[in-house]
Amino acid sequence: MIKISDKLCNELIGELKKDNKGLHSWLETIHPIDLAETITDLNDDELLQFYKRVDTELMAEVLEQAEDDFQARFLRLLDIKDIISIFNYMATDDITDIIGNLTFAESKKILNMMKEEDSGAIRKLLGYDEESAGGLMTTEFIALKESLTTIEALTKIKRISPTTEVIRSIFVLDDSKKLVGVADLRDILVAKEETLLRDIANTNVISVTPDIDQEEVALLVAKYDLTAIPVISRKGIMLGIITVDDIIDVIEEENTEDILKLGGVSEEERIDSSLMISIRRRLPWLLINLVTAFLAAYTVGLFEDVIAQVVALAAAMPIVAGMGGNAGTQTLSITIRSIALGELELKESWKIVFKEILLGLIHGAATGVVTGVILYFVYGNPYLGLIILLAMICNLIIAGLSGFLIPLGLKIVGIDPALASAIILTTATDVFGFFIFLGLAKVFLNFLIV
Amino acid sequence: MIKISDKLCNELIGELKKDNKGLHSWLETIHPIDLAETITDLNDDELLQFYKRVDTELMAEVLEQAEDDFQARFLRLLDIKDIISIFNYMATDDITDIIGNLTFAESKKILNMMKEEDSGAIRKLLGYDEESAGGLMTTEFIALKESLTTIEALTKIKRISPTTEVIRSIFVLDDSKKLVGVADLRDILVAKEETLLRDIANTNVISVTPDIDQEEVALLVAKYDLTAIPVISRKGIMLGIITVDDIIDVIEEENTEDILKLGGVSEEERIDSSLMISIRRRLPWLLINLVTAFLAAYTVGLFEDVIAQVVALAAAMPIVAGMGGNAGTQTLSITIRSIALGELELKESWKIVFKEILLGLIHGAATGVVTGVILYFVYGNPYLGLIILLAMICNLIIAGLSGFLIPLGLKIVGIDPALASAIILTTATDVFGFFIFLGLAKVFLNFLIV
Repeated sequence: MIKISDKLCNELIGELKKDNKGLHSWLETIHPIDLAETITDLNDDELLQFYKRVDTELMAEVLEQAEDDFQARFLRLLDIKDIISIFNYMATDDITDIIGNLTFAESKKILNMMKEEDSGAIRKLLGYDEESAGGLMTTEFIALKESLTTIEALTKIKRISPTTEVIRSIFVLDDSKKLVGVADLRDILVAKEETLLRDIANTNVISVTPDIDQEEVALLVAKYDLTAIPVISRKGIMLGIITVDDIIDVIEEENTEDILKLGGVSEEERIDSSLMISIRRRLPWLLINLVTAFLAAYTVGLFEDVIAQVVALAAAMPIVAGMGGNAGTQTLSITIRSIALGELELKESWKIVFKEILLGLIHGAATGVVTGVILYFVYGNPYLGLIILLAMICNLIIAGLSGFLIPLGLKIVGIDPALASAIILTTATDVFGFFIFLGLAKVFLNFLIV
Repeated sequence: MIKISDKLCNELIGELKKDNKGLHSWLETIHPIDLAETITDLNDDELLQFYKRVDTELMAEVLEQAEDDFQARFLRLLDIKDIISIFNYMATDDITDIIGNLTFAESKKILNMMKEEDSGAIRKLLGYDEESAGGLMTTEFIALKESLTTIEALTKIKRISPTTEVIRSIFVLDDSKKLVGVADLRDILVAKEETLLRDIANTNVISVTPDIDQEEVALLVAKYDLTAIPVISRKGIMLGIITVDDIIDVIEEENTEDILKLGGVSEEERIDSSLMISIRRRLPWLLINLVTAFLAAYTVGLFEDVIAQVVALAAAMPIVAGMGGNAGTQTLSITIRSIALGELELKESWKIVFKEILLGLIHGAATGVVTGVILYFVYGNPYLGLIILLAMICNLIIAGLSGFLIPLGLKIVGIDPALASAIILTTATDVFGFFIFLGLAKVFLNFLIV
């Protein structure tokens, strides 16, 4: 929980006052990713000074790793020529991410100044949805013809490797540039010199098309332990690769999204977000919650006459509603997680429905008996205990069913289950919980007033 | 949401009836990870038949990828000799995981039959906590002396590479086997033949000691975009590496844990877990929730006389408690996620505390005004509206503070904040919400009964 960059930032400002030799030997001791965090805290003058003192290659590496806001701020300090010389050291996916955060006018100006081949690739990448395989991929990879021998391949690999991120997987193409296999660099290293790439390539390749959602790509990479997954067109032409470090970011991003949405924060908010951002992210959701709270209050209001006669009901009713919410949330968490991990099988659903009904029955009976007995001792009326037992069994069955069927239904109709499930679920368990408990109390009112 | 293994399983049973050529050409079309899922559904006879028909190397690859239960079941079908010949094709971390799931007697028997050097490494790995860097690492990596030239290094790499998982990072050791740097295979490939490894190695190495918790290791790998992280002893001796595919599993596992714990499921449960497992995972938590529900009910019970006089309070009180729970859960989700991602800085806490108080004030005022106005129109009493406004402001401030301070406090005293925060939070917002609302009503009772 310590921020390393505060300390580093002071050191860096000190080093900038020294000569090049001092600065560069200090820079060698700092990881580029830490450096990226550090320079974020520099002011514009210090930043320009830093830029002028370091190699363009290091600057590119650091800029790649920096936050979006900083990237835009920094580029606005530079001439287009400087920007393009930095971009020469960056992978196309990183350039695309940076350009994607600039204004349309800014990005157009930069793209027009770039070499035709580079700007073409980037324009193409800019066209993909940011959260799709196309939006994640880079066009820097090693792809070789299947008819090459391993010694020829190795020569090419040596030439290409400095500009590519992944070297373990060499993608093997046929004459029409279709991806036909993947060769492991280890196999190329140990194979006889005249062996053809096609003969050592594994033809059983896991790949995606550019339109595939990033969540699905992440599931594939996780399942098949890949360090890079190729992206191919519908016709099988190799377009790019997605590397595992970007996949880790996707996984963390999707998990953050799920946890926040389950907690009722509709869009990404960080612990250090500004007050205004926090209000915008949370207040709309609270207002929706308020509507459902009124639904529950309305349900209680229907039975005000009953409560007026047996005030104990007012104290006991939150137990029924609350326990329903708790039990439903348990089922919901497991269901949401199964969906996220791609584990849920539709045709097995009826088994889960059956299990959740049974669980509701058992958990409702267990907690209901405890509650009923305690209420009997407190109020001396056995019927109150029986009514709450019955209500809790019913509400926990509803809770279990809702916890499974709501996210499943949302998933099927294409709504993110993490977003809306929790609120629908607690509305159901609150409204139904109050209704069944107070309704039973109304029916058996004569036994309660004795 | 379709399980591929059902279809494959039927195909495999069919292929087992054919000759070796047919079976092997079918096997070539199946990814080992899909095969691992598939053979899980075979019965013991079919499984033995499968084992006898496939290469030991493929069997090892498939077994590595299979579920724990299956691994134990399969090994119990085999002779020790067969087991050891399969283990010859596996990495030490995978063997350790498998042996760790057997009984002590079984694992001892296997270890005693293994080659001294292998069993020694595995015994050592078995000694580490499963959720630590030591428990995750494998001892198969390429480490070379810094005094080697790149051409010498390349010869060694070619020899070692078939038995190692990672080849992009070559770890560079000094004479006392201390890790002094990492060389990128790309640099070795393009360097002049007589260049020394020490001259191209990057000495700025991110590493961990074996006792570090897997969550911290995952944060480092994610932050620094590593494909493998070295594990070193306190004295700097290289012990092993952890590969990025295992880190992805850790990240998914930790995220599952956080989501389930936040949802009130104390230990891992899957959507297809048995009824008994579900009860064991969920019922204890529901019973703890019941205790807190009684606390809330007890609070309400304190004001039964007030409710008896103004029954409208019974309908309105769940709004105050519920909205507190909702607002607190929002803060809680963001805090838990920040802690998980290592973003929370202790010394910035006071800023967040201040922000949450402000947010509680603003959100409480916004939702409280809406609620108050509606209650005024429903019941025609302005004081009820004013009381609920005041109660909601107070409860949403408490909610925001609890949502931040409870997980922070638990983290500081070393308790997993995802586990207990939600329940403490909702207890606080329920009890305080009922108390402040009904308490205010009691104080201003005269205005309410008019």
